[in-house]
Amino acid sequence: MAILSALATEVLIPVAGVIGIAFAVVQWVLVSRVKLSPAAAATGGSKNGYGDYLIEEEEGLNDHNVVVKCAEIQNAISEGATSFLFTEYQYVGIFMSIFAVVIFLFLGSVEGFSTKSQPCTYSKGKNCKPALFTALFSTASFLLGAITSLVSGFLGMKIATFANARTTLEARKGVGKAFITAFRSGAVMGFLLASSGLVVLYITINVFKLYYGDDWEGLFESITGYGLGGSSMALFGRVGGGIYTKAADVGADLVGKVERNIPEDDPRNPAVIADNVGDNVGDIAGMGSDLFGSYAESSCAALVVASISSFGINHDFTGMCYPLLVSSVGIIVCLITTLFATDFFEIKAVKEIEPALKKQLIISTALMTVGIAIISWLALPAKFTIFNFGTQKEVSNWGLFFCVAIGLWAGLIIGFVTEYYTSNAYSPVQDVADSCRTGAATNVIFGLALGYKSVIIPIFAIAVSIYVSFSIAAMYGIAVAALGMLSTIATGLAIDAYGPISDNAGGIAEMAGMSHRIRERTDALDAAGNTTAAIGKGFAIGSAALVSLALFGAFVSRAGVKVVDVLSPKVFIGLIVGAMLPYWFSAMTMKSVGSAALKMVEEVRRQFNTIPGLMEGTGKPDYATCVKISTDASIKEMIPPGALVMLTPLIVGTLFGVETLSGVLAGALVSGVQIAISASNTGGAWDNAKKYIEAGASEHARTLGPKGSDCHKAAVIGDTIGDPLKDTSGPSLNILIKLMAVESLVFAPFFATHGGLLFKYL
Amino acid sequence: MAILSALATEVLIPVAGVIGIAFAVVQWVLVSRVKLSPAAAATGGSKNGYGDYLIEEEEGLNDHNVVVKCAEIQNAISEGATSFLFTEYQYVGIFMSIFAVVIFLFLGSVEGFSTKSQPCTYSKGKNCKPALFTALFSTASFLLGAITSLVSGFLGMKIATFANARTTLEARKGVGKAFITAFRSGAVMGFLLASSGLVVLYITINVFKLYYGDDWEGLFESITGYGLGGSSMALFGRVGGGIYTKAADVGADLVGKVERNIPEDDPRNPAVIADNVGDNVGDIAGMGSDLFGSYAESSCAALVVASISSFGINHDFTGMCYPLLVSSVGIIVCLITTLFATDFFEIKAVKEIEPALKKQLIISTALMTVGIAIISWLALPAKFTIFNFGTQKEVSNWGLFFCVAIGLWAGLIIGFVTEYYTSNAYSPVQDVADSCRTGAATNVIFGLALGYKSVIIPIFAIAVSIYVSFSIAAMYGIAVAALGMLSTIATGLAIDAYGPISDNAGGIAEMAGMSHRIRERTDALDAAGNTTAAIGKGFAIGSAALVSLALFGAFVSRAGVKVVDVLSPKVFIGLIVGAMLPYWFSAMTMKSVGSAALKMVEEVRRQFNTIPGLMEGTGKPDYATCVKISTDASIKEMIPPGALVMLTPLIVGTLFGVETLSGVLAGALVSGVQIAISASNTGGAWDNAKKYIEAGASEHARTLGPKGSDCHKAAVIGDTIGDPLKDTSGPSLNILIKLMAVESLVFAPFFATHGGLLFKYL
Repeated sequence: MAILSALATEVLIPVAGVIGIAFAVVQWVLVSRVKLSPAAAATGGSKNGYGDYLIEEEEGLNDHNVVVKCAEIQNAISEGATSFLFTEYQYVGIFMSIFAVVIFLFLGSVEGFSTKSQPCTYSKGKNCKPALFTALFSTASFLLGAITSLVSGFLGMKIATFANARTTLEARKGVGKAFITAFRSGAVMGFLLASSGLVVLYITINVFKLYYGDDWEGLFESITGYGLGGSSMALFGRVGGGIYTKAADVGADLVGKVERNIPEDDPRNPAVIADNVGDNVGDIAGMGSDLFGSYAESSCAALVVASISSFGINHDFTGMCYPLLVSSVGIIVCLITTLFATDFFEIKAVKEIEPALKKQLIISTALMTVGIAIISWLALPAKFTIFNFGTQKEVSNWGLFFCVAIGLWAGLIIGFVTEYYTSNAYSPVQDVADSCRTGAATNVIFGLALGYKSVIIPIFAIAVSIYVSFSIAAMYGIAVAALGMLSTIATGLAIDAYGPISDNAGGIAEMAGMSHRIRERTDALDAAGNTTAAIGKGFAIGSAALVSLALFGAFVSRAGVKVVDVLSPKVFIGLIVGAMLPYWFSAMTMKSVGSAALKMVEEVRRQFNTIPGLMEGTGKPDYATCVKISTDASIKEMIPPGALVMLTPLIVGTLFGVETLSGVLAGALVSGVQIAISASNTGGAWDNAKKYIEAGASEHARTLGPKGSDCHKAAVIGDTIGDPLKDTSGPSLNILIKLMAVESLVFAPFFATHGGLLFKYL
Repeated sequence: MAILSALATEVLIPVAGVIGIAFAVVQWVLVSRVKLSPAAAATGGSKNGYGDYLIEEEEGLNDHNVVVKCAEIQNAISEGATSFLFTEYQYVGIFMSIFAVVIFLFLGSVEGFSTKSQPCTYSKGKNCKPALFTALFSTASFLLGAITSLVSGFLGMKIATFANARTTLEARKGVGKAFITAFRSGAVMGFLLASSGLVVLYITINVFKLYYGDDWEGLFESITGYGLGGSSMALFGRVGGGIYTKAADVGADLVGKVERNIPEDDPRNPAVIADNVGDNVGDIAGMGSDLFGSYAESSCAALVVASISSFGINHDFTGMCYPLLVSSVGIIVCLITTLFATDFFEIKAVKEIEPALKKQLIISTALMTVGIAIISWLALPAKFTIFNFGTQKEVSNWGLFFCVAIGLWAGLIIGFVTEYYTSNAYSPVQDVADSCRTGAATNVIFGLALGYKSVIIPIFAIAVSIYVSFSIAAMYGIAVAALGMLSTIATGLAIDAYGPISDNAGGIAEMAGMSHRIRERTDALDAAGNTTAAIGKGFAIGSAALVSLALFGAFVSRAGVKVVDVLSPKVFIGLIVGAMLPYWFSAMTMKSVGSAALKMVEEVRRQFNTIPGLMEGTGKPDYATCVKISTDASIKEMIPPGALVMLTPLIVGTLFGVETLSGVLAGALVSGVQIAISASNTGGAWDNAKKYIEAGASEHARTLGPKGSDCHKAAVIGDTIGDPLKDTSGPSLNILIKLMAVESLVFAPFFATHGGLLFKYL
């Protein structure tokens, strides 16, 4: 019925994936052209034809010592990050293995580990594959999702630590060159992640299909394990990485900036390497895993609903693959969008950075709208039906186009609102900066109020998307709206990863003792990066809200719940306890950062007090001990919040049953999304308020500054408080809501059969 | 069927009310025995037989100048508070009048302003009074509730400003005497409020009954206006008073303590009078109105459900009045409990204060459990039926006893948890104090984490109460559980009001230039007061959660909604937007406090800079301007948050209909209760962490102090941030959730008939 044949779909998806990967490789090659060895510098202008070192020298281009130093520092950061991630992965690996066994046992027990075929859940009268094998395939796809997520995060970190010193070196030539290097590196990560996620999922579906054959219901049920794996990994990545980075950051700032009055990233500060390593393991690897998880989950949610809609029932492969086709189009659209930043235009001045990044969002959204329209026309029949809690609802291809498009545009709105509240170009952040006049207390009060206020419009945007897409195509509509929001993920990740890379670049410039002009340039990149990081988090949270609602819907359908009635006490207690979980989780992560930071502070103080000549720059700090403190703290402290999230659905579902679990999911969703948005934006605003005062770009800003003034000190306190909010607890919360939903979906057959023990026996 | 006859009930309730009022008067008389005029001091030991001035003098008992000065300061505070409340009441009066017209028009329009009788909503086949008259009576009871609430708050303030200087003077004789004076004054307020609330409600019911006769459905429907009036007034009292007090407090602290390094409440600080006025209008008058509102609403919720249960159908007056009987017993129980603090035992040392207050909670809860058992046995038939969303559910009298008791004990648990997290006798606050070693940032991070963590157990306690009481007696069970939690309101208010009175007493001691030992004593009272204030807020929030759920249930029944299905998009968007409202509201109130504080800081700085000799104590500060700043700010800034809360149900109900409104109520409830608890406890913990460092009572505390150390400065910053959290936005949130629910209930007939315009025409 669709214009696009099944064969064309079979070709199109992997081709888009491969193009994305190829594009990432090209960007990598371009970044690697910036040489990090003085030998190359010595032969600058040689046959390679690029002659980087021949162009007009701006800031000590010929100082080979600087290049050597940058390479050294980059090496130290890269090694630190790699070694931390390996340690983290060992612990997470153990946890994942145990959890894989749990999945297998729980799902296998649904039909008593029988190897006999059983009647299908939805397609009445037909026989489906045995539950035992679905348990096996679910476990396999869980592990696959976890590994893909792990690799995504790890590669992201590798690219970032490959690019940071290169960005520093390019900053010598001007802000435009540095911007392109940082942005290209972000693009490498964005495209690799989006493409590999698509390709792996596509291959998995095709491989599983060899076994499942015509049993599409079982096939896509087992595929949801992929989403669960991706998000479980992301949870530990975000929490572990978040604690690591913020313990180091807070610790370094409290002694260095506040007590010793030395600049940020000063090489004399013993925690400085840990701080820079943290940016890469937290903001890069953690975020990479996180967005990959969202992407995998929204695809899985859409696929599982589609499998019990007319696409699945009629075995319409192209229609079934619509979510993957949307992502494929997204890769191509993002590819074109990237060229606008790197090739079609050139950044020449600091003030062009933020508009350039903003243009990326607008261009990708506009192009993608056209792309969605085309693919909806090509891949979907004019009319089809979608599963809607037991009934089938008729939907048109244009209806589905609207669902995806509204998600896409809601994402853009959330992005803009986030920018408005976190960029120091607008009045909210300037007001926060202004409130520093009366000290840290008013700064914190204004910052918290700003974060609370910034929730309003995104929530309305999400509510409208939900209402419209649900009205059009029930839970499938919400799932594809989430996919729409994530369809420009490659661009989103590129501008998101760009932030920490610039931050690191600034750190390297400081540590390598480069001129202050270099630092100013990287700071300008970083300030824009703070805003884009907040925008990225806005996307992550907005899409998480939609994804988890879609997963929630799929869970409810699969668990056979007909209605989730708030007036039922079973549901209501779930709702109120669910709404409490984000607080519990945040309490754990914030306290962890606080405690780890205290340890870090003590260590840094000890080194300053006991290592002779450290302040004068003659003694060498002991970076390794600080790295160890961050590592140990994050490994130890990521377990309790991780366990809280992973175990809650299991315990609630098993003891209290699917109704209470539905309440918990809904409560955690509606409460968590608010805290997540407000925490991210508050933190981003404080960080940029501080940068606003430091940069002193306007008359108003200069009355508050300069660095070291009372206002600035108050701003630093706000920035420090914001660190765990915006980089640890806030962004972990969207994983909390998604993960609990996808886990419930995976375990739904078990809960439906054996759940609710407590109410059964009371 | 019940043992207690209708006549006995008719007698018992007003008698309990009168006893409560008489007891309050006795306490007042006892407090007034502390003379505030030096003439009385001159005749000390005269015929009055009490001879206060003959006992061993401890701290300048004979310094008559001090007495004169205290009287003067008290006068200034009392006048400031009275004049502010009058201004506030003028504005609120206008708002209330308009809203009264809205109520009349909306409810009158339900049957097109017809004066004909109409079929009853629940009792099929019977005729009820015309909607127009119910509109009229609802409006009247709304105004009555508002006035009672206003009078409660105003009287509370009068008592507090009558008692504060007397507490200061008694502190000269020792901490025990001061404690008794402060506590007795709190008891005056507690008993007056609990009794007058009961008596007014009782009289209203009896007067309305003259018109309604056998139409109990209409009677109790119109009575719900009483709850709405009480809570509307409370909203403005809490928000206006909260902004007033915290603008003054934050402003005074920022310049006085932080910049000028002068003690808190130093008379040289121009904002000091405004600060002390604020305690009385915010913490006393606001809180009085708030708890009165909770009490009125839970009674109304129970009554309205009872009227459509077997009590109402069979016209069983005693059973119908069960909620009022529970409150009557509560007054007697609290009376006995109070004697334990004032007469049976005596406080001799500082360390006995907190246990004494805690004992009040335990004794009242234990006695009340017995009281509930007796009244349940006397007033209820052995078996009866309760309305449960369209059906009737059979309940036994012992079942109802369990409902009330579980609410009561859940309140105690919430109280204890709150104490644990906010008292500096336990490790959580000590940890927060310890984190001040590394500065304000870690203090804030730890404080926020503490607040988040403190939510866990109260939420479980609330969830269990809801589940049990709902399972036993549906929404009626939840309403009486709320009443159970509030049944010891007289004691709760006494220990709650005690806090601000002690705070003021300390302020007066400082301003009157009394010795430091006096200040230390009042500080000790105040530290315990911070904890009891937090406990009081815990009760207020816990009961608000139960009350609003009960009101929500009544609303849903009245609006004819059969099921509130989270899976319906109409409900879900309500849920997520509802969960956002507390953030919106908090953003407004916190920003208001911040802005008003900025203005206050500028004025105080201006006075220090321009008034010659102010710092030296020779110049006189201009207190009036500071009072004016607080007044203007709070009057202006209380309107937007007030309008948000009052208009949301009207707009949502009218445009989107009852389903979306149900979602909004549930969302606001489950999200608001978390923020309210965490905000109150975070603020309380910061305040007491500061006091912990200042008091230096333990080895650990001394390593952090003394006053003026870096640790102490960090603690002061936390305390200042906590001010708007714990005294403005946090405690206002419980009004938000209650008020929206009771408003929806009052307007339910309108929404059910004319609501949901947008969905109807789209």
